[in-house]
Order: sequence, then structure tokens, then C-alpha cells
Amino acid sequence: MYEIIMEDMTKVKGRTEISELGEFGLIDRLTSRFGAQCKSTIFGVGDDAAVLNASEKEAMLVSTDMMVEGIDFDLTYFPPKHLGYKAVTKGISDIVAMNGVAEQVTISLAISSKISVEFLDDFYDGVAFAAQEAGVDVVGGDTSASVTGLTISVTAIGRAEKERVSYRNGAMEHDLICLTGNVGASYMGLRLLEREKRVLGDVPNPEPKFAGYEYLLEKYLKPRARYDIVESLLEEDIVPTSMIDISDGLASEVLQICKSSQCGARIYLERIPIAKQTNELADEMNINSVVAALNGGEDYELLFTVPLEMRERIMNLGCIDIIGHITSAEQGKVLVTPDGAEIALEAQGFKKQ
Amino acid sequence: MYEIIMEDMTKVKGRTEISELGEFGLIDRLTSRFGAQCKSTIFGVGDDAAVLNASEKEAMLVSTDMMVEGIDFDLTYFPPKHLGYKAVTKGISDIVAMNGVAEQVTISLAISSKISVEFLDDFYDGVAFAAQEAGVDVVGGDTSASVTGLTISVTAIGRAEKERVSYRNGAMEHDLICLTGNVGASYMGLRLLEREKRVLGDVPNPEPKFAGYEYLLEKYLKPRARYDIVESLLEEDIVPTSMIDISDGLASEVLQICKSSQCGARIYLERIPIAKQTNELADEMNINSVVAALNGGEDYELLFTVPLEMRERIMNLGCIDIIGHITSAEQGKVLVTPDGAEIALEAQGFKKQ
Repeated sequence: MYEIIMEDMTKVKGRTEISELGEFGLIDRLTSRFGAQCKSTIFGVGDDAAVLNASEKEAMLVSTDMMVEGIDFDLTYFPPKHLGYKAVTKGISDIVAMNGVAEQVTISLAISSKISVEFLDDFYDGVAFAAQEAGVDVVGGDTSASVTGLTISVTAIGRAEKERVSYRNGAMEHDLICLTGNVGASYMGLRLLEREKRVLGDVPNPEPKFAGYEYLLEKYLKPRARYDIVESLLEEDIVPTSMIDISDGLASEVLQICKSSQCGARIYLERIPIAKQTNELADEMNINSVVAALNGGEDYELLFTVPLEMRERIMNLGCIDIIGHITSAEQGKVLVTPDGAEIALEAQGFKKQ
Repeated sequence: MYEIIMEDMTKVKGRTEISELGEFGLIDRLTSRFGAQCKSTIFGVGDDAAVLNASEKEAMLVSTDMMVEGIDFDLTYFPPKHLGYKAVTKGISDIVAMNGVAEQVTISLAISSKISVEFLDDFYDGVAFAAQEAGVDVVGGDTSASVTGLTISVTAIGRAEKERVSYRNGAMEHDLICLTGNVGASYMGLRLLEREKRVLGDVPNPEPKFAGYEYLLEKYLKPRARYDIVESLLEEDIVPTSMIDISDGLASEVLQICKSSQCGARIYLERIPIAKQTNELADEMNINSVVAALNGGEDYELLFTVPLEMRERIMNLGCIDIIGHITSAEQGKVLVTPDGAEIALEAQGFKKQ
């Protein structure tokens, strides 16, 4: 019916469900049509952030993320202030993952009628708090009505010296695979909140049992991006050969680096850092904490690689674990158990609900 | 219940409906808390795009927009390819409105299960088509699931010499108020599509009557951002004292410039450019075409001001109408009818559905 106004636009034919391709398959299919034509585009689709030319020495980094109510967060237990905080973290973390310094964010919202002005005040207080803490300016956004649910879009803008930008595709054989902090805590925080929601759904004045697991809640509800690591790397004059942030889960991110760098990886299971509370709650809930650590996601920690000879300098940074090393592509992507067995690494992504 | 992890975050109190504040009131309230702390932020919230420091001479421009199904578009008659095209236009238009050249966009989507891969293929074909046409690279995005409906978020990135950036706040008394193209056509295109949807809702194999109104459909479904004007202004070495794009409607944009520039404005009704098809369909549908022109919105034309002495040079550019002039704030914002009567300009915004 619209051929009148644009002959080159053909009608939709057939119907393939998105689930048939999977998220990564879909992204590959959709983005394959985009090449770069502007000379200011250094790197486009396919990393944590796009890399643009700012000046002779510096690059601008731009990243965008979306968070959807009912998919990425549940407002029955997610306080608006934390949600605003986490939205900023999600944006900044992508800039950090390029070894850049985040300087600005924009926040756009699609708001349903159930959202009050007071909710938004709290949300933006969280945004402002996170921005202030990270030294980032909130420079714009858009608000739209929404038929149902809250949708948040975050764009983060950062800067880095061009020669200090870490892509996903620079990992080399024998490089050390490094991980900041610990993994799986955010996922266990989510599981705890979901359990209390289930248990207390119909109880008036519910009193959820969170004692002893505050760290897990904080990792899920109010994670901080690891901009401190970017500072440490700069001070120590280290540029990772590749870097990515842990948003979809450790296993998925290792596979992303391997795919982009066309290499393999060996990860040693006993070296994966898991927090005490993560192990305790996993035991209590009969969840395998290694699965939480590998596939949990939303940790916003950094996974990166450096040349073998930097082992000493990485160890000196503190709070960084060397969990494995890069191999040739032929050697595959494997998880090595304490008894020496090898398991193929698989990405499950983060199934949130 | 979350005081445990962040004492400084207080609970939500009271409930004020967003409708009590209105869109502009809400934005003012929410953004008032954001100042600039980064030295790379030249201008943050409150214009079509944020202005960031790129190099000594150049600024980067960043803008973000959201489009929500059922609010901003209706998929029963909006072809996905046009929707992709229009999303890019919406982003680019904000950069153009700062007198900048758009160079990159990112597109994020929240996708419900009713959306097929073929739909997304078409959508991204439209994105690629618009980007190619405008010389812009698609450098990223995010996809998320959605419980209901499609939400699109666009971020546009552009560049301008710092001294050529046009803000909303630079209009001076006696400046000429200039408008590109014509206004009201997009709104009438929407009204036509809505009429045919109503009439043909239950008809099998509907054959909508669009003949003679193709221009209106194109202005609504597939508008092109006025990047050609930015080029013309550069060639003629003209820097508008203020500029804004027509997204919410001519009246609303005039008021925005007056608010930012702390001035008044006189707009002459008979000088407002309205296309022949706009007038014809308005007559047919018993709509006042002046109301469509003033309050319709989504024209993506440019409204700008230049000093009085540039009249000749503006006239030489072609396709630009001088529709009024800037006055002192005390003289108010008025629409002058052909018989000399003065009507206070009011912004209704664009009520789409």
C-alpha cells in the first residue's frame, strides 16, 4: 500500500521468529548491512562502544543500552533510585570496557501512567547520584509516554587516547585472561529478590529476609562500574590487548572475546572468584554457584587480556584474578575443572526472569 | 526495605500524576538537578542536542530520542522500512537543529514477540537507506525483549565548528524568524492514515484512498531531515542566532526559542507556508489548516533566527520563508492575523492519537 511513495521499499514477506536466530544471531544479521562511510568513524558496530575520531590523539566512545520493565527489571522490588543508579552504571560500564573514561550520559524514558512524578524524582536522584560519583554529566534525554511499562534508554559518551582503546579483537595466543572483582553475586541477588517476591507476594506488610546477603542485593540493584580499574591501568601504563564488561555472563564474554579475536581460551574453574555470600546463598537455594558465576551476568566487572609478561604487574594491581589464558582457535574454548577435565564453554546469556 | 544498602535513598512519598505537570514541566523538574562537572561538557540539557568538546575548534553534538508504539506510531499502517527511515531522521534532525553535520547514529530496540525477523530486516533496511542518504554511519545499538509493543531509541552524533553551533538561546530583538519548507503536512498525513484505518478497519483487502495526498503521507511516514539547509548556511557563511527543529509544532518551537532567548515574537499568519495538499485535505476533513500548521508537529523543518540585515541573503537561499520577527519579552509571543488582530501563541504540542 506504500509503494506509491517509495518503490524501493518492498513488503514484508514470510515470518521468522526472533527466537529461531537467538539474540546474537539476530544482531549479526541486522548489523551486517552497516559499513562505515564517515571518516570520523574509527569503529562501528560490534564492540562495547563505537569509537569515533575526536582529535588527532583522542577518540570519543559512544554506547547505548536499553532496559525494559518486566524483562530487565521488576518494579515490585526494584527501588526507583537504585534503578536510576544502575542505568547510569550500565552506560558507563560500556565506556570502561573500552578502557575509556565516561564523561556524559543521556537518559531517555518511556513512561506509563502508573509512574508518578515522585517515582521519577527518585529515579533521577539515583541517576544524579551515580553520575556525580563517577564524575559524569547528564547532558540530555527524552521522555515519551508508554502504553504499558517503563523503558529506559541510556547513552554513554566517553573519551580515551586512541592508542589506549581496548577492543574485543586484540587478544593474542598466550595472553593472560584477567577478571576484576567476582562474578555471580548479581545473579544471586536477583534470585534472592525473586524468592522473597514469590514467598511474600500475598502477605500484607511483608518482611523479606535479606540479612547476611546485603552484598548480593547491592551487586544486583546498585552495581558500580569499574572506572577505578581504568584509572589503575592508566597509572600502571597497561593497555589490555582486549577487554569486555560482564553484562551477559562470564562464559558469554569469554566467547565474545574469542570470536572477535579469533582465538581459543582456557579458563580454570577453581580460579574463578566467587564471593562468600554468593556461595552461601547458592548452597541455601540449591543452585550451583559455578553456574551462577559463569552464566549469571550483570556483574559489571571487567574481563581483559594482557601479554604473559605482565603477570607481575597485574598481580600488583590487587583485586584482579588471572583465571586462564588465550590459546589458538583450534584449541577451542574450554573450562578446566580441578581434576583436569575439560568442558566446552557455552554461553547461556542471562535469563533474567 | 532497601535502606540497608543505601541509607541516603529515601522511599517514594506521595503521588503526583505526570499529567499535572505536563511534558515540559516534568522535564524542567527532572533536569533541574543536573549541572555540568566535566570540562568537556560545553552545553548539557535544554537544547536539541548536547554540545561536547571534541578538539580546540570542533564540538561534538549528541542527541537522543525515543519512539513508542501506540504513542508515536501505529504499526497497522506504518511500514517498518519507513519507520526505520523516520527514526534516523528524528535523530539527524536534532543535530541539524544545532547547525551541525550528523555523522553517526545508534538505534536500540525493545521488541515484543509479535515482531518477526522479516519486520526487523525491513526496519533496518529503512535505517540503512536513511543513513546512506544522509552520509551517516550506524555505529551501534542494543536489542532487548519487550513485554508489549516496539520501542525505538535513537542517538545521533554530529559535529560542528564551535563558532557555528546554533543554540536556542541566541535570538535577539529585531531578528528575523525564518522557516524552511512548509508546516502541517506531516500532521495531515497522519490524519489521513487514521481516517483510512477507521473507515477500513473491518474491510477485507482494504483499498485506502490516498490519491492526491502522496506528499502528505511522505512527510509523515518518511520525512527527510533538513541537512541540506546546514550546507546552504555554511556556503553562505550564515550562522543563525538561534535554531530549533519542528518536532512538537511551529507554535511550540517559537515558544521554546522565546523561553530560551528570553524574548518575544511576532508571527504573521499569512506568511506561514502551508502546502497545497495540506490545505486541500484540511478542507476535505473540516480541519483548520492553520491549526495543523501551528500545532501539528513532526515536520522536521527548521525554525531559525538571523539578524535583520541578513534578509536579502536568506531570501536568496530559496525555500525559506521569513514568518515574523523577534521582539522584547514584554511584547509577548503573538500571532498576527491578516486583519491585524493579535492572538497569543500557545503550545499544544503534538497529540498524536
